[in-house]
Amino acid sequence: MDILYPYARMKAFCHDVFEKLGFSDPDAAQITDVLMLADLFGIHSHGLQRLVRYYNALQVGSVRLDAQPETVFETPLSAVIDGHEGMGQLIAAKAMTLAMEKAAQHGFGIVSVRNSNHYGIAGYYSKMAAEKGFIGISMTNSEPIMVPTRAKKAILGSNPIAVAVPAEPYMFWFDAATTVVPRGKLEVYNKKEEPLPENWAVDETGAPCSDASRVLQDIITRVGGGILPLGGFSEESGSHKGYGYAMICELFTSILSGGATSNHHVRMPGRGAGSCHAFLAISPALFGDASAVSERLSVFMQELRSTPPASPALPVLTHGEKEWKNMRYRMEHGLDYDEKTVAEMKEICEKTGLRPETYFG
Amino acid sequence: MDILYPYARMKAFCHDVFEKLGFSDPDAAQITDVLMLADLFGIHSHGLQRLVRYYNALQVGSVRLDAQPETVFETPLSAVIDGHEGMGQLIAAKAMTLAMEKAAQHGFGIVSVRNSNHYGIAGYYSKMAAEKGFIGISMTNSEPIMVPTRAKKAILGSNPIAVAVPAEPYMFWFDAATTVVPRGKLEVYNKKEEPLPENWAVDETGAPCSDASRVLQDIITRVGGGILPLGGFSEESGSHKGYGYAMICELFTSILSGGATSNHHVRMPGRGAGSCHAFLAISPALFGDASAVSERLSVFMQELRSTPPASPALPVLTHGEKEWKNMRYRMEHGLDYDEKTVAEMKEICEKTGLRPETYFG
Repeated sequence: MDILYPYARMKAFCHDVFEKLGFSDPDAAQITDVLMLADLFGIHSHGLQRLVRYYNALQVGSVRLDAQPETVFETPLSAVIDGHEGMGQLIAAKAMTLAMEKAAQHGFGIVSVRNSNHYGIAGYYSKMAAEKGFIGISMTNSEPIMVPTRAKKAILGSNPIAVAVPAEPYMFWFDAATTVVPRGKLEVYNKKEEPLPENWAVDETGAPCSDASRVLQDIITRVGGGILPLGGFSEESGSHKGYGYAMICELFTSILSGGATSNHHVRMPGRGAGSCHAFLAISPALFGDASAVSERLSVFMQELRSTPPASPALPVLTHGEKEWKNMRYRMEHGLDYDEKTVAEMKEICEKTGLRPETYFG
Repeated sequence: MDILYPYARMKAFCHDVFEKLGFSDPDAAQITDVLMLADLFGIHSHGLQRLVRYYNALQVGSVRLDAQPETVFETPLSAVIDGHEGMGQLIAAKAMTLAMEKAAQHGFGIVSVRNSNHYGIAGYYSKMAAEKGFIGISMTNSEPIMVPTRAKKAILGSNPIAVAVPAEPYMFWFDAATTVVPRGKLEVYNKKEEPLPENWAVDETGAPCSDASRVLQDIITRVGGGILPLGGFSEESGSHKGYGYAMICELFTSILSGGATSNHHVRMPGRGAGSCHAFLAISPALFGDASAVSERLSVFMQELRSTPPASPALPVLTHGEKEWKNMRYRMEHGLDYDEKTVAEMKEICEKTGLRPETYFG
């Protein structure tokens, strides 16, 4: 059974935890904003559910509390940032801010980041840019979970690509792993003890596999096996395309920044994950009247939403619509957390010297 | 049975046809270069097989022989070009050249194009940029063939996204429709009278459909039905992701240029298709030493090619590898054309006043 808590209280809780962990007030607020957006949008795998993992990473020194992201190369349009194994959300927000400053001045900005850590939902940063009127793009590599077409071992990460563009009544907001599904989906099937759908995963031999527990174990032990690219197992269903999008993500993140490609990511106490990110901001004014671009996109998205659906009960959606509706609903009615997550959050309160009753009644 | 012809002869044939049709020598050479690359790479749907369609489009005035692409908006980093319904290949090559000039000067160039026509393989133009050391991106919208997730009518085009990046021993070269398969694949199944694989297409009601002939007819008559996005029918297999990539293509092509979105493309004598393209060139020097970027990518691609395959007979490929090998093989052994295409090419010789024997023995 899910439990509902008001947005303001969960936000205060998250903020207080990160302050107790040693972050400054603005840094705690930044991290909180990223995590809360995931929960508001309904992407629970990247919300407060993940708090325990960040907590542990800080305890074992995989995320360095005092790291200062460093700009190691810069041009008027671009920069390379070394995150020095700091908190991904802080490094990423700084990097996207820099990309936006460049775009505000020149029309375009691109920042590639190495030596960072998990940065939350990719789409938080593209949304940052779209809220300031830019086309925003955000990508990150990750530890290897994707088995490329024809292979048997995971080499690429979930490698999401997120794009956001201003539009009315809500922006175009696309944020998707280039795997057919994110790892969290396998965890859901594992919990339910249900077989995975076809074309989701392969085992250590590279053969299609419907056993969620086995695939998850394979990913952790890195003996082979993992999740398939968008497009599934074979070229017939476009497997090589999902693999290609993951490569594009890898290009902009690890290859351009000189950081670790997904296959070289580590999970070791005292060492950062090696995450690499990329952030692009493009001004619509590069193409004439910026507001006209947004208007054209709004009209086109309305045409899509107005097209007759195959099933009347399932209207055609545009990207971001579901998330905007989720956000509005949860702001009003509260955020839903499962019992396990609530128990974990209470435990973190105790570990960090906060009173659980303050936030969880 | 396929018939083999030497590369030089087929190139001469294509060039002579376009000169006879009224194009200047350099313009005929440019168009020929695009079409021949498709055949060399083994993408026959976009090679000389398509000549008859270009011929017809020129005859009925859908492609305007004398159109001059016009730069209607420009900044140091960007431009919008109106193609005035000219030959897509000429407009596109000019636009990518402009993007590259901007990238050579400032590190980045982006050109969005409206009112063009079919431009051949998207990857020709990204390859142009990669050959000059840039990260090259090329996209185009097209007449509607993709039925968005949950819909029953085609609204988006095949909307390919192509990315090319310098690497050794061959570049990263990714060029893929954002539909699960291109239309040409349905034509192959139709010819063989075989049922389509699952998750490829839907009929006029939006229900999954394995009848290639029906879907192809649906696309032409625009009564509903069409090809599914990469990811297939349902969100479970990632349909909304392929739909999202098609939207990203639409954004950079039609939305930024102010041209026709795919659902507003026409097929009418005397009127251009309305195709919109986008071209991006990014200098690796924006991230430090350009050659280091290419070296890192080459190492990573070699790691991918060296990873053990699930089946020893099917080694893991990187994007572009197949095409480079195809090109080398065909340069040496000749280009393969089916009998129908050879007959069409001979007919075009006669219609344009060329002697078939000159090229086809």
